[in-house]
Amino acid sequence: MKLATIRTSGGTRAVRVDDDGLTDLGFADVGALLAAEDWRSLAASATGPAHPVDQAGHAPVVPRPGKVLCVGLNYRNHILEMGRDLPEHPTLFAKFAEALIGANDDIDLAPESDAVDWEAELAVVVGGTVRRADERQAADAIAGFTVMNDVTMRDWQFRTKEWLQGKTFEATTPLGPVVVTPDELPGGVRPALELSASVNGEEVQKAGTSDLVFDPVALVRYASTVMTLRPGDVIATGTPGGVGHARRPARYLTDGATLVTEIEGIGRLENVARRS
Amino acid sequence: MKLATIRTSGGTRAVRVDDDGLTDLGFADVGALLAAEDWRSLAASATGPAHPVDQAGHAPVVPRPGKVLCVGLNYRNHILEMGRDLPEHPTLFAKFAEALIGANDDIDLAPESDAVDWEAELAVVVGGTVRRADERQAADAIAGFTVMNDVTMRDWQFRTKEWLQGKTFEATTPLGPVVVTPDELPGGVRPALELSASVNGEEVQKAGTSDLVFDPVALVRYASTVMTLRPGDVIATGTPGGVGHARRPARYLTDGATLVTEIEGIGRLENVARRS
Repeated sequence: MKLATIRTSGGTRAVRVDDDGLTDLGFADVGALLAAEDWRSLAASATGPAHPVDQAGHAPVVPRPGKVLCVGLNYRNHILEMGRDLPEHPTLFAKFAEALIGANDDIDLAPESDAVDWEAELAVVVGGTVRRADERQAADAIAGFTVMNDVTMRDWQFRTKEWLQGKTFEATTPLGPVVVTPDELPGGVRPALELSASVNGEEVQKAGTSDLVFDPVALVRYASTVMTLRPGDVIATGTPGGVGHARRPARYLTDGATLVTEIEGIGRLENVARRS
Repeated sequence: MKLATIRTSGGTRAVRVDDDGLTDLGFADVGALLAAEDWRSLAASATGPAHPVDQAGHAPVVPRPGKVLCVGLNYRNHILEMGRDLPEHPTLFAKFAEALIGANDDIDLAPESDAVDWEAELAVVVGGTVRRADERQAADAIAGFTVMNDVTMRDWQFRTKEWLQGKTFEATTPLGPVVVTPDELPGGVRPALELSASVNGEEVQKAGTSDLVFDPVALVRYASTVMTLRPGDVIATGTPGGVGHARRPARYLTDGATLVTEIEGIGRLENVARRS
């Protein structure tokens, strides 16, 4: 099952994405849907009304997550190629909902930054309420997966030791276009998918999502040790090599650049960077 | 004006704290009140009903802030006494709403941590919507001030370079008991107040809130460069010297310890640490 939050003239709506159209699920967005205890059967059995596909714009698939958790270094090959040891614990940081944009919205290049970079990521969307989840509870709490680009102002990220201020600039971070439930993905709650990013058509990142040091189930377990995870929370699982900041010379998003972020089997984000 | 969120048998309520009682303001909590554009006049003119004072328990004064921003090193004397240079930019990190507790609630000593520490702080509560605020807009966007203890799991804080996981353990962080509007405080939007913390009656932190490197107005301006600040958002302004982790030997909260955090003119948090 694929779920999306679309923009309509009457506000956003949660829909099921079927082969032949978009079926309204009776909720304002996917976050509100996931908060319903029986969301899986509600979403599977909904029969409409239908929304026209060609007019539908994508909102962030969860427009106002209670929490957006992001993970630092998490791709095994990339860590090893950098000559680092595999980490013992995941590095977690936050992003606020103000950062999120839809799958085809413009990325706001704030005038305060000259170093806006890309980070293609697989994101977990939480579909249950869990604290100190065991393996089974963590797997069951995963509603599905979506695509995020954790767009980052590198100059602000490294102003201080804490990355938050470079990670949460408003209207920078596409999330979507859909949440795909684990039953539709190879690997299920530990999906094995190809992740890629391109800038102006040139591929800049490519990796397999099965190369994560801390997989989605492990991340749900770890984060739920710290606090309760709730429906609509998002955990971005980290990015592989190929970011612009690590290139020599460094390369960043410029006004008018098109950033495409794609995970096979989930979907594609296509966002144009615009200097505001 | 002093505002609080109290717990009643029918759920939480926003109240004005008067000399002779608590006046209901018609909102479920102070966060909901602040989202009303004319909250100042609504709160000032409300006439009831009244709530009995002696039965009122304090919820976190804003129970579900959209954002809780915290500031790292920010007390001038403490930075200088540590032999460090004053920072050029504020260090910002996040805490999620799950961490918050009321002014007299127990602090949950999670079994996963053996190093739970205190950080007494002045907290700004945002009362308007601002982005890239100038000096005047930033001052106007400050609804008032409250007390926070940014209780921190030091072992988790320093597991990785990013502090988040040690900063946002569930049910650790008292916020309240009231929001006091700037007109009632010496220094107004840059309040000059005495901040202190004690553990089991022994004073462990004491400082003047006018010693901040980045004052409340500067912090609102800075954070609003990154993203829109909204009513109910909280910015904790940092802690002075005297935390347990810096002591030799280090000292942490133990089961049954009473942590009192107080700012003159605002109020007092008194929380017992309980091993769960």
